[in-house]
Amino acid sequence: MRQTFVSQLFNSIADAGRDLLDRGAGKSRSHTIEGVCRDLLTQRGEASGMALAREVVDLWGTLDDDEKLEFLYFLAKEVGTNSDAVDRAVEAYQAEKNEENQRKLAAVLEAPRQELMRRINFAPGGTAAIVAMRKFLVSKIRKHPDLKDVDQDLKHLLSSWFNRGFLELEEINWRTPAVILEKLIEYEAVHEIEGWEDLRRRLDQDRRCFAFFHPALPDEPLIFVEVALVKGLAAAVQPLLDQEEDRLDPRKADTAIFYSISNCQDGLKGISFGNFLIKQVVAELSAQLPNLKHFSTLSPIPGFMKWFSKTDGAVGNMSEDRVRDVKKALLDKDWFKDEKITAKIQEPLEQLVAYYLMHEKSRERPLDPVSRFHLGNGARLERINWLGDISKNGLKQSSGLLVNYYYSLKDIEKNHEAYVNDKKVVASSAIQSLAKMS
Amino acid sequence: MRQTFVSQLFNSIADAGRDLLDRGAGKSRSHTIEGVCRDLLTQRGEASGMALAREVVDLWGTLDDDEKLEFLYFLAKEVGTNSDAVDRAVEAYQAEKNEENQRKLAAVLEAPRQELMRRINFAPGGTAAIVAMRKFLVSKIRKHPDLKDVDQDLKHLLSSWFNRGFLELEEINWRTPAVILEKLIEYEAVHEIEGWEDLRRRLDQDRRCFAFFHPALPDEPLIFVEVALVKGLAAAVQPLLDQEEDRLDPRKADTAIFYSISNCQDGLKGISFGNFLIKQVVAELSAQLPNLKHFSTLSPIPGFMKWFSKTDGAVGNMSEDRVRDVKKALLDKDWFKDEKITAKIQEPLEQLVAYYLMHEKSRERPLDPVSRFHLGNGARLERINWLGDISKNGLKQSSGLLVNYYYSLKDIEKNHEAYVNDKKVVASSAIQSLAKMS
Amino acid sequence: MRQTFVSQLFNSIADAGRDLLDRGAGKSRSHTIEGVCRDLLTQRGEASGMALAREVVDLWGTLDDDEKLEFLYFLAKEVGTNSDAVDRAVEAYQAEKNEENQRKLAAVLEAPRQELMRRINFAPGGTAAIVAMRKFLVSKIRKHPDLKDVDQDLKHLLSSWFNRGFLELEEINWRTPAVILEKLIEYEAVHEIEGWEDLRRRLDQDRRCFAFFHPALPDEPLIFVEVALVKGLAAAVQPLLDQEEDRLDPRKADTAIFYSISNCQDGLKGISFGNFLIKQVVAELSAQLPNLKHFSTLSPIPGFMKWFSKTDGAVGNMSEDRVRDVKKALLDKDWFKDEKITAKIQEPLEQLVAYYLMHEKSRERPLDPVSRFHLGNGARLERINWLGDISKNGLKQSSGLLVNYYYSLKDIEKNHEAYVNDKKVVASSAIQSLAKMS
Amino acid sequence: MRQTFVSQLFNSIADAGRDLLDRGAGKSRSHTIEGVCRDLLTQRGEASGMALAREVVDLWGTLDDDEKLEFLYFLAKEVGTNSDAVDRAVEAYQAEKNEENQRKLAAVLEAPRQELMRRINFAPGGTAAIVAMRKFLVSKIRKHPDLKDVDQDLKHLLSSWFNRGFLELEEINWRTPAVILEKLIEYEAVHEIEGWEDLRRRLDQDRRCFAFFHPALPDEPLIFVEVALVKGLAAAVQPLLDQEEDRLDPRKADTAIFYSISNCQDGLKGISFGNFLIKQVVAELSAQLPNLKHFSTLSPIPGFMKWFSKTDGAVGNMSEDRVRDVKKALLDKDWFKDEKITAKIQEPLEQLVAYYLMHEKSRERPLDPVSRFHLGNGARLERINWLGDISKNGLKQSSGLLVNYYYSLKDIEKNHEAYVNDKKVVASSAIQSLAKMS
Repeated sequence: MRQTFVSQLFNSIADAGRDLLDRGAGKSRSHTIEGVCRDLLTQRGEASGMALAREVVDLWGTLDDDEKLEFLYFLAKEVGTNSDAVDRAVEAYQAEKNEENQRKLAAVLEAPRQELMRRINFAPGGTAAIVAMRKFLVSKIRKHPDLKDVDQDLKHLLSSWFNRGFLELEEINWRTPAVILEKLIEYEAVHEIEGWEDLRRRLDQDRRCFAFFHPALPDEPLIFVEVALVKGLAAAVQPLLDQEEDRLDPRKADTAIFYSISNCQDGLKGISFGNFLIKQVVAELSAQLPNLKHFSTLSPIPGFMKWFSKTDGAVGNMSEDRVRDVKKALLDKDWFKDEKITAKIQEPLEQLVAYYLMHEKSRERPLDPVSRFHLGNGARLERINWLGDISKNGLKQSSGLLVNYYYSLKDIEKNHEAYVNDKKVVASSAIQSLAKMS
Repeated sequence: MRQTFVSQLFNSIADAGRDLLDRGAGKSRSHTIEGVCRDLLTQRGEASGMALAREVVDLWGTLDDDEKLEFLYFLAKEVGTNSDAVDRAVEAYQAEKNEENQRKLAAVLEAPRQELMRRINFAPGGTAAIVAMRKFLVSKIRKHPDLKDVDQDLKHLLSSWFNRGFLELEEINWRTPAVILEKLIEYEAVHEIEGWEDLRRRLDQDRRCFAFFHPALPDEPLIFVEVALVKGLAAAVQPLLDQEEDRLDPRKADTAIFYSISNCQDGLKGISFGNFLIKQVVAELSAQLPNLKHFSTLSPIPGFMKWFSKTDGAVGNMSEDRVRDVKKALLDKDWFKDEKITAKIQEPLEQLVAYYLMHEKSRERPLDPVSRFHLGNGARLERINWLGDISKNGLKQSSGLLVNYYYSLKDIEKNHEAYVNDKKVVASSAIQSLAKMS
Repeated sequence: MRQTFVSQLFNSIADAGRDLLDRGAGKSRSHTIEGVCRDLLTQRGEASGMALAREVVDLWGTLDDDEKLEFLYFLAKEVGTNSDAVDRAVEAYQAEKNEENQRKLAAVLEAPRQELMRRINFAPGGTAAIVAMRKFLVSKIRKHPDLKDVDQDLKHLLSSWFNRGFLELEEINWRTPAVILEKLIEYEAVHEIEGWEDLRRRLDQDRRCFAFFHPALPDEPLIFVEVALVKGLAAAVQPLLDQEEDRLDPRKADTAIFYSISNCQDGLKGISFGNFLIKQVVAELSAQLPNLKHFSTLSPIPGFMKWFSKTDGAVGNMSEDRVRDVKKALLDKDWFKDEKITAKIQEPLEQLVAYYLMHEKSRERPLDPVSRFHLGNGARLERINWLGDISKNGLKQSSGLLVNYYYSLKDIEKNHEAYVNDKKVVASSAIQSLAKMS
Repeated sequence: MRQTFVSQLFNSIADAGRDLLDRGAGKSRSHTIEGVCRDLLTQRGEASGMALAREVVDLWGTLDDDEKLEFLYFLAKEVGTNSDAVDRAVEAYQAEKNEENQRKLAAVLEAPRQELMRRINFAPGGTAAIVAMRKFLVSKIRKHPDLKDVDQDLKHLLSSWFNRGFLELEEINWRTPAVILEKLIEYEAVHEIEGWEDLRRRLDQDRRCFAFFHPALPDEPLIFVEVALVKGLAAAVQPLLDQEEDRLDPRKADTAIFYSISNCQDGLKGISFGNFLIKQVVAELSAQLPNLKHFSTLSPIPGFMKWFSKTDGAVGNMSEDRVRDVKKALLDKDWFKDEKITAKIQEPLEQLVAYYLMHEKSRERPLDPVSRFHLGNGARLERINWLGDISKNGLKQSSGLLVNYYYSLKDIEKNHEAYVNDKKVVASSAIQSLAKMS
């Protein structure tokens, strides 16, 4: 009952607000999004901020792509920093370097679009609209690099608003409203969810799912992680996704496998939640299920095949011939089904993956993005799993291999420091041996 | 059940986090608040941000006033802007005025304490701690003007976080948890609440109370307004507070009287919510009780007597003699009980109040702060009420008179513009007449 | 978070309870459901009622069909009324007809299984288990008429517990937990829901769904009704179910069509909620959407074809030839697609349906169960809709025709009294005319 | 927001219902409570049950005591069992003793007022009204013993509705709505709560309070227990109630003291919840605070002084002289402050209390009602506490002594059986020794 009424009420208040705006305005008002934004930044905004903000939010929803782009350029040009004012403030500051002048300089350097966004945010749905603006912007930024300042400002603002302290960790299960569950199906980025039955298996008694939410986006997960409760470190993902597998009594599991982590909001790109999420879920699960002793991911190696295909000649201690044999074997698209082939290339392929993860770097950091993320969080590279993901995508990305990154709460900071200060890839001795290729 | 468990869990997670921090740190860690803040701003903060933030929050709670002040100076000096870096960035910008250099300049102008605060906010209770820091700072700023930059930064951050879009309007009534209700008793700033019985009367069927809340401070109202549902414009506050008065069926009321508005958080000083609150409550009540036709305050005139005592000679068109007679009459502390006196001075006193409200200004705005607030919101000065508040405080502030500011949704913007652009005090013709003193 | 913990806690308490039971019992306890029930009815039940009840609930969940039947016979034979005691009480009453003896007679006539059920209900899940027992019993009663007394007792008890005053009307929408939504898919009895997409369309902005819930069965709807918000009285159901149809702004609808009502709990058979549900939903929708002026069902005529196929010769004023022509036409399974046929038989078929609904009765009540239900509720037979349901089932049951029963709040009681006292079928003049077949 | 709207809606629906009733009724309706009840039991009740039930509930609220009594007699006389029908059914049953006739006999023995109550319960507030009817009845039954059948019927119905399985255990703390907290103040029956400050101390961090609620009476606790978390078995109640005592960190407590249990609803007299409450709270606290090892009451001995004052001559092994000395000493109203007196009578008084608790019985059960309750629950009589309650009431009831009843989950059933089967008072050896008076 309640929701319907309250939202109706809300609409009627907002409608009233807009009627009043129109009636109240002696002169005619502009109803373009840019016009309303201008009003919102002036004194009319002080009196009728909520109604104007609502109008901006509604108008944004009606724009086509060209108009959206036009609006972004409005943000860039018309409500950006005023260069003349900046110059004057710089000069004043250089003339007299006091706190007052420094404050003034900082003030003119903040583009008015930041205040505009804060006012748009007054409206119900304001935060969602701003996230949507950034999502659109992110998708256009390559072709429109002159929007970079706008992007920086939106990111800065959203980063402040989506501070970890404002996020809520929620467990997602079969009691969660459908409006949220369907978002999981939409946003799952690692192992596609193929419908409600598939989803249900992932929320069964021996599975867990956690997500971060922000109070202003109650129906939108920001990031979520899917966990399988198992016995022993899982080595392959297909059995975890299989509908037919027996369900395990969660009190009998000793290991939690994080087999999928998905960021949901393109509009929050570059604002990192994953670090917090994994650690908090580890703590949460430890409290829920004291029998859990091990926490590990089962992760893809998304950059491996791309890197491997570009190698030329020997790799590490592996001879050119041996490398070539592996490459050749992989050309057969059904290679993984052929026991003769797999018997032959398992060892060198695992060595190559270990080598790639341990030694291939870019700017002193691992080349592989997933590795970078987990090692940066303080996890340890634990095990390479032969044919852990034989989906089309798994074969294409990493010749079907998967990796476990192991989270040991007591080693997290130590590992993190070794990674940051000493550029060290913390790995199990097994992986270290493999990487030696000897 | 639930709360107890969840908060226990939370504590145990945080405790675990801190144990791990200590065990994890190869070298010994500093446990002063400044030391932990330094950690929080470096790479250790990246790995263990949540646990460090929690430690800062806990440590803040243990500081005495001297230590708090010391911490504020740490914020001012050690994590303020780096003047050398600013100078270099200014020079670079002047050498080449491009976007990149402008961005860099803006970046160095943001003091690291802002990022520090964002990280402290990671912890449960972080927002509350930062609001408490600002509260303490606000109480010290006069004697410590060199903390102004810190104050500006905290205010800027809190202003962004406490954006209207993140606030929730809640109705407060007898079903509200006691932990919130006792805050009303504590925070009521206009007409003191004398205990639970008094509070209960203010939440009875013919009363309403609304407050804004922020999700990160769920037990703390930010601002609240108390409303009486009555027939006709109320002229005096004592009957509204009287326990013995009959309760009115709210469906029979035609007028909502806002008789008290209290800001609750000194730490959010300068961040305005009242404007939004009143308008939204007007909309809310209109929807709840369609029979309500009038929305008005019953407000004090806090600056009147202070101003009046300083006047010298004639006031407006009122002769010096007449003014002197009024002043003399008010010297008797029981003057308001003496019909002969009241008969004599009612007219001139009302004229003086009208004159004060209409014509006494400071920087083109009304001298009276309450008047400034409501006129700035678009309300109209409606009526002066003789002996509307005969409490000790009411007599002292404004010789017992009260004022109604009338909110007419359809005139709000028009009134606001007249106020802002034309410096006009929008008032009823009755008050205009009184102010002429003729 | 919360749910998981609380339910864990709950399980651990119950487990502890059972351990204690076993440790506490000096002598060995029986662990058959019958044995535990015996304990529950004796002093051990007074001390450890909750744990024993929990055990019964768990045991019930493990029984196969034969064991369930055995348990029902245990209820019938071992914890039924004691005939000797009844005889003695009857004699005592006849000897002295006082209140005390009457009370004693009433007491021995209540079978101990009622108290047993009340004790089983102590356990979490107890109510659900008892509803499941009755569901099983209902499915067996035809073959096992000697369980009738058990059925009566369970029904009596459940009828008291599922009193309207304890039910909660809830709106079901896309924000409802999946665990409830999947029940709708399972329980829909009129127009099958073909999956989550179909369900979603039925919960879209121009649809409403309401259900009754009982606090002890929070995930189980007891009965639900699906409503379409439309303009004008809907005449056909397929367009209402069509995914591709445009959605209507609900504020523009003038009519609410109840197109499906489903009882969900076989275990509550014979306990009627539909009457309350429809009236309350009418009131609810009236308040939500003041634009709604008409409330009507779009209902099947489940008994029509069965009756029609059994008619022999003339029907009412319709000649034998004409009737035969209609019957013959319907033999072609695609008759409804053939315009020549439909042109020919529309009129007589509508007349026959009208005749059936108006005049065919059993024990003075309409033969058609849906008609009986709505007329008994005080609705009016409003309109017959040609080819309103051309699904396989619709054609089979009622040659594709549907009926609107119209709910006019102000006529409900009048209609109900006419129906009850005067055995009158309240119908529109159009239907009355059709039924005359002239 | 929500509540206001929903309850408004509810009222408007109910009002509409009543309007319709009046408009709908061809003939004029009776508006006495008895008249409406008659309607409710007939066919009008089938059509308009909800509106009629609402009317009964409202009318009940307007009755004065005489009218209430009149209504109870209406229940007794007019909607009681029909003696003629009973006689006929008895005869039919004796003529042919089959199941059908037994069922019919049982049916006529159920007074129609039971069905009437079930229908009154349709209305919002129906359950509360029925509980209020019973409350009134309970207060009148001594003077009106001819209402006993009505009382039995109401009790039977309420007992079924307030089945343990429908109750919810809630923790009461400072986050609980004020509307519930004020009920604690009202209902506390053992150690009076002297206002909100006193209440707050009882809900502080080292205190717990739990209550049972029924979904149909959401603001009304049925029974509640107050618990102090302490170190070691508490021996006196005044320190537990003292505002000034230091608060204990609950994680450091090893003992939970149940120092007050209060039944709240006179209308539910004779329906026992205490047994369930204590055991569930023990389980709850064990899970919340694993450090708790002991669970014990600190209980009054309400019948001691009454019994003692009636003893004549020797008691057990205690000589007449010694008994007389004790009696004499207690005549001084400040005896407990006089060390000479207390030194002298402590031993014999404790022996007398032990003797009273161990040996004074009525119908083989302990004379003391509190003792009967806890021993019946399976607790053990643990310790007698000298001057444990020196309040006026404590001195009057039990010469200032208090008793600990100890709950050991693992012994509960064993103790209960010893109590029930062997009439044994399970007591610590210390108390057994005392009772020997040697």
